[in-house]
Amino acid sequence: MHILVTNDDGVQAPGLLALAQELRQLGKVTVFAPDRNWSASGHVKTLDRPLRVREVRLADDTPAYSCDGAPSDCVALPLMGFVEEKIDVVVSGINPNANIGHDVTYSGTVTAAMEAVITGRVPGIAVSLDAPEFHSGPLDFSSAARVARNVTSRVLTGTLPEGVLLNVNVPYLEEEHFKGTLVTRQGLRVYLDKLERRIDPRGRPYYWIGGEAPSGVLEEGTDFGSLKAGYVSITPLQLDLTACAALDVIKKWTWK
Amino acid sequence: MHILVTNDDGVQAPGLLALAQELRQLGKVTVFAPDRNWSASGHVKTLDRPLRVREVRLADDTPAYSCDGAPSDCVALPLMGFVEEKIDVVVSGINPNANIGHDVTYSGTVTAAMEAVITGRVPGIAVSLDAPEFHSGPLDFSSAARVARNVTSRVLTGTLPEGVLLNVNVPYLEEEHFKGTLVTRQGLRVYLDKLERRIDPRGRPYYWIGGEAPSGVLEEGTDFGSLKAGYVSITPLQLDLTACAALDVIKKWTWK
Repeated sequence: MHILVTNDDGVQAPGLLALAQELRQLGKVTVFAPDRNWSASGHVKTLDRPLRVREVRLADDTPAYSCDGAPSDCVALPLMGFVEEKIDVVVSGINPNANIGHDVTYSGTVTAAMEAVITGRVPGIAVSLDAPEFHSGPLDFSSAARVARNVTSRVLTGTLPEGVLLNVNVPYLEEEHFKGTLVTRQGLRVYLDKLERRIDPRGRPYYWIGGEAPSGVLEEGTDFGSLKAGYVSITPLQLDLTACAALDVIKKWTWK
Repeated sequence: MHILVTNDDGVQAPGLLALAQELRQLGKVTVFAPDRNWSASGHVKTLDRPLRVREVRLADDTPAYSCDGAPSDCVALPLMGFVEEKIDVVVSGINPNANIGHDVTYSGTVTAAMEAVITGRVPGIAVSLDAPEFHSGPLDFSSAARVARNVTSRVLTGTLPEGVLLNVNVPYLEEEHFKGTLVTRQGLRVYLDKLERRIDPRGRPYYWIGGEAPSGVLEEGTDFGSLKAGYVSITPLQLDLTACAALDVIKKWTWK
């Protein structure tokens, strides 16, 4: 089995290293990741400029490709032929913060997994850790890495429906304290962003999107509710965004 | 009524001008758009740098705000308080190329409309014109602008379910040649991207995502199928990506 590993935090992020090391137990791992942080950068296809790829080494000396494109570019290039050997699954992460609710269209971690489904028609798995907001010192990605291995192993058995990606969120707990694993639906994020207007040294205004870290609606059966209750959350996502319930309402509209 | 107009092609794009001029017939229009092209740039929230906003004029002397953020930032900032007056609807476009199928998570035009729903809890409408691939001379946005006005007018009556955005695609035809208007579901894009490896003047490789313009699966009831048959296509989209049909499959997985 051949696993492509990427992320949105950049090729030298510790979450990527933990993921690559753990997934090597399942098969061959190729690391192809952005050369910088692309958090909240969305689903990108870089068409207006060429992309560069460099060969680098991770902290444990694992060879890796570093690219100046977005996370989704880092999935597209290998699947389009940069890597010759067939890729069976794409795993993106481990993001240090949860990706739940409305995060999924912003998240480079999740959009990389979307790209796997679109460009490669292979399963995509996004893995995120719900680390505490104010954590000092290195994060422990080991539990999340083992969750990623378990999920990837299940996906490689081939029972995941085509076109579906998995959005996996892991509580920041020792494994023995996990309440279990729940298959969830996407919940509702509550963003607490505030616009901050500041004045630069030359007297001109500039604007920050500031505010507090996002919260969410604590609802049973959702990604956010399950994660906060101590469960590993696995949400199957699709790329068909049709609001089926709205179709009938809008079909009743008349046009002059 | 107060309408926020944005796009992903940049504040001086002719499609934005046509849209702003037409929507002024429905109420007050505020234009807040990116200072450059952001096509295929995805759903962005700019958190790692401040944003600048400049007051500019469109070609017809309409005052507008030009911002160095992404299309979604250009929706977030006004909704977060940069613009004091309440905004009733956000209309994004007119994009010169169709946004159908899998395009929706890449498209700056569509993700701007997503941002309206998320940040402002107001309806978002993305409007795209299916202009021919090799068109010389200025495009005629007038039919698409009138479609945008009609759809916006319907949305302002308040019957659109909360959390839903509309993805509108207009054939490149005179209005009298439209077959009609269809409420559609999201179809399937077929991307024809090819990876091109080239060598720079210093002997080092670089990579372009090249290939032909995307096609799609011609299926009745979908955005792509309806558009290509000569209909205006209106697809209601939601931000819940849960693959409901996959939930049961994955719930049967067992974990060691």
